[in-house]
Amino acid sequence: MRITPIIFIISALQILSSQSVADYKKEADAIIEASLKDSSTYERLAELCDTFGPRFSGSQNLEDAIDWILEEMKQDGLYNVHGEEVTVPHWVRGKESAELIEPHRKNLNMLGLGGSIATPRTGIRAEVLVVKNFDELEARKEEAKGKIVLFNAPFTTYGKTVQYRYRGAPAAAKAGAVASLIRSVGPYSMDTPHTGVMAYEENVRKIPHAAITVEDAMMLQRIQDRGQKIVVKLQMSAKMLPDAISRNVVAEIRGSEKPEEVVVIGGHIDSWDVGQGAMDDAGGCVVAWDALNVINNLGLKPKRTIRCVMWTNEENGLGGAHAYRDAHMDELKNHVLAVESDAGVFAPKGFGFSGSPEALTIMREIGKLLEPME
Amino acid sequence: MRITPIIFIISALQILSSQSVADYKKEADAIIEASLKDSSTYERLAELCDTFGPRFSGSQNLEDAIDWILEEMKQDGLYNVHGEEVTVPHWVRGKESAELIEPHRKNLNMLGLGGSIATPRTGIRAEVLVVKNFDELEARKEEAKGKIVLFNAPFTTYGKTVQYRYRGAPAAAKAGAVASLIRSVGPYSMDTPHTGVMAYEENVRKIPHAAITVEDAMMLQRIQDRGQKIVVKLQMSAKMLPDAISRNVVAEIRGSEKPEEVVVIGGHIDSWDVGQGAMDDAGGCVVAWDALNVINNLGLKPKRTIRCVMWTNEENGLGGAHAYRDAHMDELKNHVLAVESDAGVFAPKGFGFSGSPEALTIMREIGKLLEPME
Repeated sequence: MRITPIIFIISALQILSSQSVADYKKEADAIIEASLKDSSTYERLAELCDTFGPRFSGSQNLEDAIDWILEEMKQDGLYNVHGEEVTVPHWVRGKESAELIEPHRKNLNMLGLGGSIATPRTGIRAEVLVVKNFDELEARKEEAKGKIVLFNAPFTTYGKTVQYRYRGAPAAAKAGAVASLIRSVGPYSMDTPHTGVMAYEENVRKIPHAAITVEDAMMLQRIQDRGQKIVVKLQMSAKMLPDAISRNVVAEIRGSEKPEEVVVIGGHIDSWDVGQGAMDDAGGCVVAWDALNVINNLGLKPKRTIRCVMWTNEENGLGGAHAYRDAHMDELKNHVLAVESDAGVFAPKGFGFSGSPEALTIMREIGKLLEPME
Repeated sequence: MRITPIIFIISALQILSSQSVADYKKEADAIIEASLKDSSTYERLAELCDTFGPRFSGSQNLEDAIDWILEEMKQDGLYNVHGEEVTVPHWVRGKESAELIEPHRKNLNMLGLGGSIATPRTGIRAEVLVVKNFDELEARKEEAKGKIVLFNAPFTTYGKTVQYRYRGAPAAAKAGAVASLIRSVGPYSMDTPHTGVMAYEENVRKIPHAAITVEDAMMLQRIQDRGQKIVVKLQMSAKMLPDAISRNVVAEIRGSEKPEEVVVIGGHIDSWDVGQGAMDDAGGCVVAWDALNVINNLGLKPKRTIRCVMWTNEENGLGGAHAYRDAHMDELKNHVLAVESDAGVFAPKGFGFSGSPEALTIMREIGKLLEPME
């Protein structure tokens, strides 16, 4: 499997500021060749995911995975390998289910949304009002009272559709709903629900919030459009436990000329609780990690320090990112570049960039060195 | 939605035996136009699926759906609308689960396979042996004893891969396994298991048999290949209840010249218990049903009788097909053509045919009339 060498190269080429990009052609080609020569990075990713399972903030799985990574990094011979403690929220999903009661009985595959409260122990059994968007909810506000509101928002872009997951619960609560559901945020499913984080608003009653599958949401819409009554029973036992301690994982190659200047590369090591988090985001972590190994193994000596960071608790709190910022505030000005991979490590297509126009010009130059991979 | 008009046309054109196919161009075009003019057939399909849910043999859902169809067919003004009783098996899935215990705890999405026995009430907790095929099981027979055997057979064709579902349990039992699992029969999944029918062999110990997802099967293979131990706990409470009574649904357009000669068109009305059975095979049923309506509404008068049959209990027994054969044995020679749709009613691409070379020639001629749909 072709684990993106982009991050390897970007990292190595941070050395370029005092030279022209073309001078690094030989090193760039060597890095590309080394990173495509076998599947060892993929195998490391698979072993991490298969051995420890989901790495949710607050879980033992996550800390076990971090222990293993730190140990492996030391064995790889990386520099300054350590964990940096982070306080993280500890939400647990518990047992949960949704059942269609009318017009026929059917289990609705569902996932509670991260941060949601539970239903009462006996569940919430209520009529369902299906709306396609916030405007329709506003227009049918009177009908929502005492019901479960389902936001059946067809997927357009993640950014647009995710708002029903993130702020659907308070919107429904304001209309008097007793619980809220969303159509899973995604272009399609195979009766598979999708989870993610949600939020409540201050001074708005908290109601349980969960995702059902694309198919079931479309079915409930059709049933409502036929004028039939829909009744659903929702049971959730989610709860927020006391905060837990997790860690950001750090490993480095020490810079040969300007060790105090830092290029950060990484991803987030935590995942949701219901999958392996292989692409979200163990892949991003493992490519950053093995970028250091590829550079070391080729005997390349970057002038600045390259620091691999695997942030914890990205999914439901950004705790790791905030803790890193706070812990490294005094060396902030020494961070010359930060590269993050959190969009899957498939065949590399490019990367987003934010920074000065001057920096963008340099990045574009570096891009030319990636052409052999096309 | 474009519900295939092929079946409409084939049905209407059974009248062609005494004329040349080209003489029916006008009628064929009218049928194509009528069947593409709105989505009423799709809406009927959706209402059937959404209102009654899965239609598994032995279930009340199935009989409720049949009652509704018979009533609707009468309101459509079809001829000789009736149900024909069929004795069907009544297997119930009950509660079931599979959990990975080692190397980490994880729920494994699963579906028991139709006809499987239950585990003991406390479940079966055992080490897992993963094999890719029957040959590997044979070669590793000694290792299988007392274990759960997982057939991790990558999908090639349905026909080839389904053998592990159908006869995996007795093969594993012969090697001394306490239960068997298969990788779901399908090219991919989204953590979604797939069910279907399985069989035991006489004089071979019956063991529970279930499908896990493609992803989990691949994961267990990787774990085994790393030399790690895999432990799974399987719990199934499936059982076979006493046989139940279901019905084949029949409706006709009576032939104007040779009413005793019959063209049968149809699909199977039963489905598995864990989906809507929209494409497997309510779609096949509804297109056959509305074929009669399209022909009637156009005022066409076929010479022979067109009989729509929705067979029951195709999935786990073929009970409806056998009962139809037995009940209609004396008019067997009067069946001039049978058209079945059980491969999904998407954009029509063609159909399989078995019959005499002479009949094939006629079917090919009819095919030319379908060209406007391309």
